[in-house]
Amino acid sequence: MIRHSLTLLAAATLAVTAAHADEGMWMPKQLPQIAKALKADGLALDANALKDLTAFPMGAVVSLGGCTASFVSPQGLVVTNHHCAYGSLQFNSTPQRDLLKNGFYAATLADELPAAPGSRVFVTVDMKDVSAEILNDKTRALTGKALTDAIEASEKQLVAACEADKGHRCNVYPFFGGLQFQLIKQLEIRDVRLVHAPAGGVGVFGGDADNWMWPRHTGDYSFYRAYVGPDGKPADFSKDNKPYQPRLHLKMATSPLNEGDFVMVTGYPGRTSRHKLPREVEFTFGWEQGAIVKAMGESIDIIKAETAGRRDAEIKMAARMQGLQNYYKNRNGQQASYDGSDILARKTAAFDQLKGWANGTPERKAKYGADIAATDALLAEREAIARAEYLLGFASPSMLGSARQLYQLAQERAKPDAERKPGYQDRDLPRLRAGLQQLERRYDEATDKRLVAHFLARYLAQSADSLNAALLGAWGLKAGQDEAAIRARLDGVYAASKLADTPTRLGWMDKDAAAFKASDDAFIQMAVALYDDDQKRESRDRELAGKLQKAYAGTQRAMIDFHASRGEAVYPDANSTLRIGFGKVQGRDVGRDGETWTAFTTLRGIVAKHRGPDEAGGEFNAPANELAAIKARQFGNYYVKSLDSVPVNFLATLDTTGGNSGSPVLNRKGELVGLLFDGTLDAVISDWDFNPKAVRSICLDARYMLWQMSVVDKASRMLDEMGVKP
Amino acid sequence: MIRHSLTLLAAATLAVTAAHADEGMWMPKQLPQIAKALKADGLALDANALKDLTAFPMGAVVSLGGCTASFVSPQGLVVTNHHCAYGSLQFNSTPQRDLLKNGFYAATLADELPAAPGSRVFVTVDMKDVSAEILNDKTRALTGKALTDAIEASEKQLVAACEADKGHRCNVYPFFGGLQFQLIKQLEIRDVRLVHAPAGGVGVFGGDADNWMWPRHTGDYSFYRAYVGPDGKPADFSKDNKPYQPRLHLKMATSPLNEGDFVMVTGYPGRTSRHKLPREVEFTFGWEQGAIVKAMGESIDIIKAETAGRRDAEIKMAARMQGLQNYYKNRNGQQASYDGSDILARKTAAFDQLKGWANGTPERKAKYGADIAATDALLAEREAIARAEYLLGFASPSMLGSARQLYQLAQERAKPDAERKPGYQDRDLPRLRAGLQQLERRYDEATDKRLVAHFLARYLAQSADSLNAALLGAWGLKAGQDEAAIRARLDGVYAASKLADTPTRLGWMDKDAAAFKASDDAFIQMAVALYDDDQKRESRDRELAGKLQKAYAGTQRAMIDFHASRGEAVYPDANSTLRIGFGKVQGRDVGRDGETWTAFTTLRGIVAKHRGPDEAGGEFNAPANELAAIKARQFGNYYVKSLDSVPVNFLATLDTTGGNSGSPVLNRKGELVGLLFDGTLDAVISDWDFNPKAVRSICLDARYMLWQMSVVDKASRMLDEMGVKP
Repeated sequence: MIRHSLTLLAAATLAVTAAHADEGMWMPKQLPQIAKALKADGLALDANALKDLTAFPMGAVVSLGGCTASFVSPQGLVVTNHHCAYGSLQFNSTPQRDLLKNGFYAATLADELPAAPGSRVFVTVDMKDVSAEILNDKTRALTGKALTDAIEASEKQLVAACEADKGHRCNVYPFFGGLQFQLIKQLEIRDVRLVHAPAGGVGVFGGDADNWMWPRHTGDYSFYRAYVGPDGKPADFSKDNKPYQPRLHLKMATSPLNEGDFVMVTGYPGRTSRHKLPREVEFTFGWEQGAIVKAMGESIDIIKAETAGRRDAEIKMAARMQGLQNYYKNRNGQQASYDGSDILARKTAAFDQLKGWANGTPERKAKYGADIAATDALLAEREAIARAEYLLGFASPSMLGSARQLYQLAQERAKPDAERKPGYQDRDLPRLRAGLQQLERRYDEATDKRLVAHFLARYLAQSADSLNAALLGAWGLKAGQDEAAIRARLDGVYAASKLADTPTRLGWMDKDAAAFKASDDAFIQMAVALYDDDQKRESRDRELAGKLQKAYAGTQRAMIDFHASRGEAVYPDANSTLRIGFGKVQGRDVGRDGETWTAFTTLRGIVAKHRGPDEAGGEFNAPANELAAIKARQFGNYYVKSLDSVPVNFLATLDTTGGNSGSPVLNRKGELVGLLFDGTLDAVISDWDFNPKAVRSICLDARYMLWQMSVVDKASRMLDEMGVKP
Repeated sequence: MIRHSLTLLAAATLAVTAAHADEGMWMPKQLPQIAKALKADGLALDANALKDLTAFPMGAVVSLGGCTASFVSPQGLVVTNHHCAYGSLQFNSTPQRDLLKNGFYAATLADELPAAPGSRVFVTVDMKDVSAEILNDKTRALTGKALTDAIEASEKQLVAACEADKGHRCNVYPFFGGLQFQLIKQLEIRDVRLVHAPAGGVGVFGGDADNWMWPRHTGDYSFYRAYVGPDGKPADFSKDNKPYQPRLHLKMATSPLNEGDFVMVTGYPGRTSRHKLPREVEFTFGWEQGAIVKAMGESIDIIKAETAGRRDAEIKMAARMQGLQNYYKNRNGQQASYDGSDILARKTAAFDQLKGWANGTPERKAKYGADIAATDALLAEREAIARAEYLLGFASPSMLGSARQLYQLAQERAKPDAERKPGYQDRDLPRLRAGLQQLERRYDEATDKRLVAHFLARYLAQSADSLNAALLGAWGLKAGQDEAAIRARLDGVYAASKLADTPTRLGWMDKDAAAFKASDDAFIQMAVALYDDDQKRESRDRELAGKLQKAYAGTQRAMIDFHASRGEAVYPDANSTLRIGFGKVQGRDVGRDGETWTAFTTLRGIVAKHRGPDEAGGEFNAPANELAAIKARQFGNYYVKSLDSVPVNFLATLDTTGGNSGSPVLNRKGELVGLLFDGTLDAVISDWDFNPKAVRSICLDARYMLWQMSVVDKASRMLDEMGVKP
């Protein structure tokens, strides 16, 4: 599934030329440029209308922070992917009331359950170019940490001014590697509730085995509802809150979707790297990704072993496990496509061509030469840090992470709000609190300890002079110690901390630095002991980030200018901001060797894949009532004659990536025909290298969702609300 | 793989109308009837020439008894499927010299290894209709056991006369349910040697997981050589023997094979049941097949458990295991297609229509009525026997089977040769001896005992009055005894027999009945004790067979006449005799849900499926040198540009079944383009119900075989001999 994946270092966004109709994650403001092509492809709406974030259909599309969703009723009903609501299902699950397994259906408004702490519905209301405010004459004279600090200060000012409009969340996003900046303003709805999800045997049918695969038969949908205070403004959860009434919502398609039909997708793609520099490509696929994937594979094995037979622990680790497996499979797929390919050679040739152009005249050389020349050494510096420190991320106890965050908060709270680090301002505290609270349902001490012991042992097995002395001192560990010795030390530390107790943990949000220094809680003590080193490393990173921002933005500018000199338009790499893509419903000539792919799967495939609860890890375990309905050919209004069944999932030539999950797929009239939820493993390399022959997005067909809701789950209240005739 | 499968009861052959060009396993003599259609489809040879068994290309096609093969050099080199030579590879394998795993290549003639005992190459030299000799006025007056005896006596006479020509094997085959008979004369080559087989990771790549599946990447080929005495006549193995020089051999195709190309297949399909009566269909799919498949599944589990960690035992059980798994998967596939289908309803309607026609006039009623009316009760009687006795086949110790065979031989040898039962005449003794000898390499006592204990316990758990009293007496067992009690008894019996010793076992071939009666060998004693009951049951079966033959042949005649009255030609169901089929290379619109199938697979799929020795049971473990050659794109002369690789397997619309394995697939000029080796699981129901949209045969592409031999295995001696330019 294409959830927004973890990133080790901040993503640098880049540019790519749009060589194909189906390639491109367009910024809304760019749409007039391609309006003619869209009309030719079949779009029945005015392309210019799509650029208006507050008009139909863009106004109905929302972000959940990491996933996309859309309003589908006048009463704030929100549809997204099952895997996007997975954390809320997990949060509300216990072995006795297992929503992950059995699904959930709120029979009345009063039965709707609070989503996981921190859940939000963000409605984008404005996007504004603030490049000039951030990169002014003053900042242009700076570099290093001073530049990083100056950009951050400008961003904070812009955000604070924007958020003076209460109930909104504002953020500044860099585009083209920090060459341009956009201030994005979103209504932030804080009371989000779980309304409906199908059984796990539908919502995650196929599990990890089918993830990133075609043919696919996953019912990847769930419903939230946005609530606001009695005054119609965003509010914290309260019994008195009322459903939010969006100005716009999407309607279900009334005409059938067929192969070849025009479709579009709107959403919040997280990150692409299509024009990363050759050095970054080589580092990623030559070392970094392999190292991280290996560590993730080890994490998966450890979590499986430690939670086996303990359903409570398994539920607590479920969301993390799903994220790890998803990333693990995706990145292995990218690597498999990369290995033996000519990607690096092509990237290198393209960059050589760019360098040739940028240094081709004295003027251009003066304008771009230094920045391009500087990137190499700066990137090398960043790579060295990644190599030295990547294991520490895996080796940190969850409660040590909380303690560091809490101690940083105590330090920051001593300053005026405007001077605090981002993440520790008053605006950030609810999110910070939600994160600390959520740990309650996501923390299993035995698993946490075993993971830390494993990765600390791997860290300590490295050459002694490469290790972080401050860390070793705080832990009381030495280079080369084995897992048993580490384990003994961990037992002592974990036993001497009460942070795993949620009220205790949350209580630390209100204490000052002195209280931390006086504490005998083991993880608090470690956080205090590590603080100076943490600050030192952060300063080092800020110094490097400032230098790199300058050089990298210059390189990006050279690239844009180079393409412009050839009359080519560019769109920025994905950066978690709202984008639109276009394509059509289409199978693929190239499947597994010996196969091609059809555009649709059907209910037949569910029966064929079903293996029951005990085989294949229970990953193909369709509910008995669904199987019975299929057997009885109870197809309701969703039968498609050419398929002799109900369509389940479909393929479309849409350009998407992690973060697009839950995105509405719309037909030419802007009606909802599906939900985007995945790509295919042999084409996930498209994040780096787009191949129109291979790239297909996997979408849930809305007819499968409606069939499930009407025939299997009898969710009539919701169907009524969505205006669907039963 | 479509090896000739086990049958519980003798197959009754039936008729089917040829409704589609690609449907039909034609007798050579029928070809002039369809010559025009074949020419239109692309055949470049004279269809009339195909009916001559001694001319090109039919004269180059041979039977191995259960598999098909063909001569591919003037020096008696024979190509067939890897799975058809599996028994010989197993027979010659030890844990130290593991031909199943590593493959085999004889660098010189002297290095060629004797095939498994009893291996034969049969060259069909004549087919003659002998219906009139067998069903004459005298036999027409008989029924029951007398009829069975009379037919058998006629057959023995015809065979004896035919085999007066030394070096030949003759057999009488019933067609159309015993309505017609053909005497088939074959040159019987007795010195067969193993020349070459690829590594197991090529020959059985995909193992049980891919068996009956597409996409497929199996290198299912092996080579034998036929040897004859210095006089050119068939002879037993001897160092002095020389390669047999066939009059004809197939040449490798010199033009590339493409999708849509005309192909034909010649071979020895074992059995189809396309026009079985509705009652038989219902019994097979309603009870019999399920019961047998369940028992086979249990056998597979027991053999796996008992041989785990003992490579020697695993090798000994390998051929049986492969056969069981193959049958198990095939029959489950048939059952899955049958369940929920309308096959029984269609068969019933067709039979009702036939009955209506047959009883439609007084003449027809007089001619067919009684036979048709009689079949039902006779089939019911046969079904009851199958239900009561099917477990006994699974519950018989291998050495008790040998003992019964040996004691029967002692009884028969007391009679003149012509009066002995078929199977115990002098002509049969070499084959009988070979079977007894082969046990040496196919017998593992621990596994044998565990299988017998399991199935005896199941047998004894049935109601006491349904059990065979003679059997219980001979065993000293009682109804309801549990596996532990049975096991204790088995320990005693196995310990008190020396039959597992091969010289001892073979020594019994020369002893008379008195010696058996005097023996204290436990299995010999049991065979003697069971003899009277065995004879009684055999007489019962012969009585029933005679009645059934008469009624069934009459029903078949009615069916042929009915079709003739509508101007429809019929071809007989498969019965292990030489047939020819026609079709074309073609993918399929219907694959798994969400897929279609392309006509060819390529080397890419081998790399994609490869999992190494430790994953997926080692079933996808391509040899390192093959993977290296693929990676280096060492495609030799076998590169196909449209595939950007070497083709591995292909699909063709050829009508085949078990026994066709190893059949040469020929192009329009009669050149060898592949070897047929499998069908697809979702269409194996074609044995009962042909669906041209779904039925595809899976063929090894000869280019993959030649690529392997030239690039990977460097089998240059053989390529030279086959006239292939390296």
